[in-house]
Amino acid sequence: MNKEEYFIKQFSNNKFIGDDGAFIDGFVYSMDAFFENVHFKKEWMSLKQIAYKSMIVNISDAIAMNARPLYALLSVAIPKSYSNEDLQELAKGFKKAASEFDIEIIGGDTIANEKLDISVTIISKTSNPIFRNGIKKGEILCYTGKLGTTKKDLEKLFEDKKISKKSKFIKPILNPEFFYEISSYVTASLDISDGLFFELERLSKASKVGFEFFHEIDEKIGTSGEEYEILFSFNKKNLSKIKKIAKKHKIKLNIFAKAIKGEYKTDCKNHHF
Amino acid sequence: MNKEEYFIKQFSNNKFIGDDGAFIDGFVYSMDAFFENVHFKKEWMSLKQIAYKSMIVNISDAIAMNARPLYALLSVAIPKSYSNEDLQELAKGFKKAASEFDIEIIGGDTIANEKLDISVTIISKTSNPIFRNGIKKGEILCYTGKLGTTKKDLEKLFEDKKISKKSKFIKPILNPEFFYEISSYVTASLDISDGLFFELERLSKASKVGFEFFHEIDEKIGTSGEEYEILFSFNKKNLSKIKKIAKKHKIKLNIFAKAIKGEYKTDCKNHHF
Repeated sequence: MNKEEYFIKQFSNNKFIGDDGAFIDGFVYSMDAFFENVHFKKEWMSLKQIAYKSMIVNISDAIAMNARPLYALLSVAIPKSYSNEDLQELAKGFKKAASEFDIEIIGGDTIANEKLDISVTIISKTSNPIFRNGIKKGEILCYTGKLGTTKKDLEKLFEDKKISKKSKFIKPILNPEFFYEISSYVTASLDISDGLFFELERLSKASKVGFEFFHEIDEKIGTSGEEYEILFSFNKKNLSKIKKIAKKHKIKLNIFAKAIKGEYKTDCKNHHF
Repeated sequence: MNKEEYFIKQFSNNKFIGDDGAFIDGFVYSMDAFFENVHFKKEWMSLKQIAYKSMIVNISDAIAMNARPLYALLSVAIPKSYSNEDLQELAKGFKKAASEFDIEIIGGDTIANEKLDISVTIISKTSNPIFRNGIKKGEILCYTGKLGTTKKDLEKLFEDKKISKKSKFIKPILNPEFFYEISSYVTASLDISDGLFFELERLSKASKVGFEFFHEIDEKIGTSGEEYEILFSFNKKNLSKIKKIAKKHKIKLNIFAKAIKGEYKTDCKNHHF
């Protein structure tokens, strides 16, 4: 058990912890850190891209619970060396994400620090929250999009190579409208932030099921983190409806396993900066 | 204008920013950072005290808006060197504050970092929020308790001297029940985190009033930050009711000014680590 898990375990009698966000009375509350040298290096991205991504990874949690983000609070620790132009760029990144997802930035805290450390709280709303514990045996597992590119791009960054500005590592792509539309058929979901295999472990633990894979999944695919694709389960009777909605939104579906009795564990280390 | 103010100004068309928290539909949302070497040095306090204070300074914002805190989200960046016992101490501090104020810790994020950097979001509820912009000319200004000791204690800490475990710098004292009871008479309020003079500037700006002091306030009193006493205004017709409630709760009241036409500015630098 690593330190972070050990720390979280101290709060383990807590009924809210364990999903992407906490669902209470129609609201979902989620909070994620996005710290320099923990989640990004400043050489890798512009300040605008950093601020934007810090919002997107949080918004992703809300969407994965089938919630519509409404408000954001920002805790932003800013190096003293930053110029006013730097601060403008940072603010632009936050505002761009807020505007794209129709979120109001309602407050937070700004302090001077050695490095750029951001925490974001998102308050969102849902009438039909989706949790991690809803998978029933026999249900189908599916993820959206193409996995593996962020792992490759992250490796390039560590080798001081350039990556495309369009890389999902820099600009994750969320598909809220697709997911909201299929949500009534979805029995469990989360976003792939720590790699498919690791997220499957989480689902297995929460839903108390194992998985029978339809085909082998390459480690390069299964351990690629920070993808922010959605992993979800559904009853196979709804497959054609989900396929139709995916087609409409031009979303690639990867149907790869079914839930069985048992437990799923991965030996692979998840790949996440 | 310092960097933090410049950054916040980028969001200045925002109707929510400017109070201790954002009031929306009966809820108050507030978020404050509590970072190592910005808000505390690790030699000054135990991990339990640090975690406890990080919660209290946030809870203070909720109370100053006349809101009852319900839920907390924690973003906790933890040095890799911390032992399991260290993590237990940290968790104990968070849980102690949560338990004292009947708050549920509902989630957040835990990451490995170079130093201990905490951000806390508090979600609270109120049917009668109090803002900073409610002071009318002629109203009375008052703060609770005794100001000046945290400044003195902070100076001692910088000189590597010991301070009492009971210092308000280590363990701020909040008086929620007193404040909730007088709240219907209060026209504006905030907590003294950056020093009385600085908070008065904020009130002056928000309420568009100046202040006529009843007696001179020493700089040692007016620039002592992190006091977490409450500064508030009220109509003098309610003075005896407020005095009676203060007596019941054993709260010292310092009635020191009245609101007048004009603007208040301080030349003093606020004193805050």
